[in-house]
Amino acid sequence: MSFVREAVRKMEGYIPGEQPQEEGYIKLNTNENPYPPSPRVVERLIEFLSHSSLALYPQPLSDRVREKIEKIYGFPREWVMVGNGSDELLNLVFRVFAGKGDVVAYPFPTYTLYRTLALLQEATPWEILFPDDFSLPGEFVTARANLKILCNPNSPTGTYVPLGEVENLLRRSSCPVLVDEAYVDFAPESALPLLSRFPNLLVARTLSKSFSLAGLRIGFLFAHPEVLREILKAKDSYNVSTLSQIGAEMALEEIEYAMKNVAKIKSTRSWVIREMEKMGFYVYPSQANFVLVRRGGQDLRFLYEELKRRKILVRYFPEWPEYLRITIGTDAQMEILLHSMREIIEGVA
Amino acid sequence: MSFVREAVRKMEGYIPGEQPQEEGYIKLNTNENPYPPSPRVVERLIEFLSHSSLALYPQPLSDRVREKIEKIYGFPREWVMVGNGSDELLNLVFRVFAGKGDVVAYPFPTYTLYRTLALLQEATPWEILFPDDFSLPGEFVTARANLKILCNPNSPTGTYVPLGEVENLLRRSSCPVLVDEAYVDFAPESALPLLSRFPNLLVARTLSKSFSLAGLRIGFLFAHPEVLREILKAKDSYNVSTLSQIGAEMALEEIEYAMKNVAKIKSTRSWVIREMEKMGFYVYPSQANFVLVRRGGQDLRFLYEELKRRKILVRYFPEWPEYLRITIGTDAQMEILLHSMREIIEGVA
Repeated sequence: MSFVREAVRKMEGYIPGEQPQEEGYIKLNTNENPYPPSPRVVERLIEFLSHSSLALYPQPLSDRVREKIEKIYGFPREWVMVGNGSDELLNLVFRVFAGKGDVVAYPFPTYTLYRTLALLQEATPWEILFPDDFSLPGEFVTARANLKILCNPNSPTGTYVPLGEVENLLRRSSCPVLVDEAYVDFAPESALPLLSRFPNLLVARTLSKSFSLAGLRIGFLFAHPEVLREILKAKDSYNVSTLSQIGAEMALEEIEYAMKNVAKIKSTRSWVIREMEKMGFYVYPSQANFVLVRRGGQDLRFLYEELKRRKILVRYFPEWPEYLRITIGTDAQMEILLHSMREIIEGVA
Repeated sequence: MSFVREAVRKMEGYIPGEQPQEEGYIKLNTNENPYPPSPRVVERLIEFLSHSSLALYPQPLSDRVREKIEKIYGFPREWVMVGNGSDELLNLVFRVFAGKGDVVAYPFPTYTLYRTLALLQEATPWEILFPDDFSLPGEFVTARANLKILCNPNSPTGTYVPLGEVENLLRRSSCPVLVDEAYVDFAPESALPLLSRFPNLLVARTLSKSFSLAGLRIGFLFAHPEVLREILKAKDSYNVSTLSQIGAEMALEEIEYAMKNVAKIKSTRSWVIREMEKMGFYVYPSQANFVLVRRGGQDLRFLYEELKRRKILVRYFPEWPEYLRITIGTDAQMEILLHSMREIIEGVA
């Protein structure tokens, strides 16, 4: 279609991980939580469905969810908005801060959606390589840009930048800085306590990972009220479905349940890293619910494919063929994975 | 925030109708369906919740919903995408076809979201007044633009442009033409049969009105596969929650149930129009699930406010103070409305 904007025609869309339809896969490719959400979330949804109608529009600003957020995170409702997954919120931040010709800077490699969103806005993505220790690149800290993004913990590496470095970034940046904390519950600390002191900070969170609710599509964006007011102008009126709001409310009430699952995943992670290192993999130091591995400079496609044949899905990025990203599942799932990896590697050797 | 794009800072966001939290309102202000969705939708959702986990991501392209759409509307899956309400789909169409400096034309008055979406893209909204008979403005048909939008039936007027005029518009337009058919199930004919012959046609539909599922946020966009491929690049990976997909599937299976509610609403509409005309209102000829009324040049704010005091919500647009838009509810709700309107008007006279 010649009427399609050139920026879109030239762009490749973001390709999400596989979501197989057949049952029976051990799914370690899209960083879902292997544990179900609190049973009270499901109970509450069933109760709601039994007594209320879906014929009415949902609350435009997810007010009851924001009340729960205030109780847990301590930020009044004007400081937070709720989105259809944090992807919607990332989208809105790009639309509000990055226009044609603007520069969006972020350390790289990272979530490749940022590139897609920048190109869609006809902004220039400025991808600044992480140093080997995955600390913040100095060039990123001092970069002059219209918007900076830091995925922390980072995907696909799992690495984490300590709060002191984030604070330094905020201090040295005169532009908005979005910290994408999709995985932060698996890491030491969130940037949220910095928010009151840094009006250029925005923090995105999600219930998809630590709260086991990827299916509900719920994200939160924390920012100063005058910033959020601008972002809200660009939001769809009814962006979060009634059932997602109901589920999110109860999930937040059940935060202890979620944090127990987080603790289990962190413990499994430590053990899995040790086992993979024994097999000769380099495992990037992970503070997320996944690990990134490589084995020298070997193309790991064979491993991805052989695991898939055995009904274990891990993430292989064609643009980074020497790496696999592997979600931390249950202990039982990881036993099967590790056993298969050993067999495959010994078979090749 | 000085870093907010000027286009956003200057913009006013779209303001949705009130969603009161207290119970007991007769809610005739946001064109929701007064009848609940098929009970099988709720049953299916409860069954799903009892047996499946929300921890996994939903299908990125809502494939099972698209299979049902193919059965009902006859378009294979490459011809349709599913959105988080039709608002998300409108958003995507603007982002793909309207860049900075482009022109987006539409007859006016209409859904004011189109203006917001154009300004967000730094495109120029070209608002062409409907003639008194609400036929298509000749200037709109021949307009040179980058994107044309026709809301049909139109909101807030309820008026409807027959298919022959839509076909003429498509023939005379060299740009994409989006027909927003949110209300089309209450009207004589959809533009969908024109799709195979006009590659510049896009049709947006929703389950919010005729299917009584505003709470689920489900919209469909029909277009030629090569057009949809471009639009999909800009879509969030997981834009429709698992529960919304499950509900939409079953709602489509229960289309006969929805169409019975549509028939009831159309019959109520005829009666309400006659009664309002008896009260001295001019009622615009409606093919939607609402009516737009005026009474000479009188500012109708008093009527809106007095109805609200009586717990009846109708839509008053501050920019069009001589009009009220009133959703068609159940017969019982409309009896109460008509009775109150008579009392209020006689009280004033």
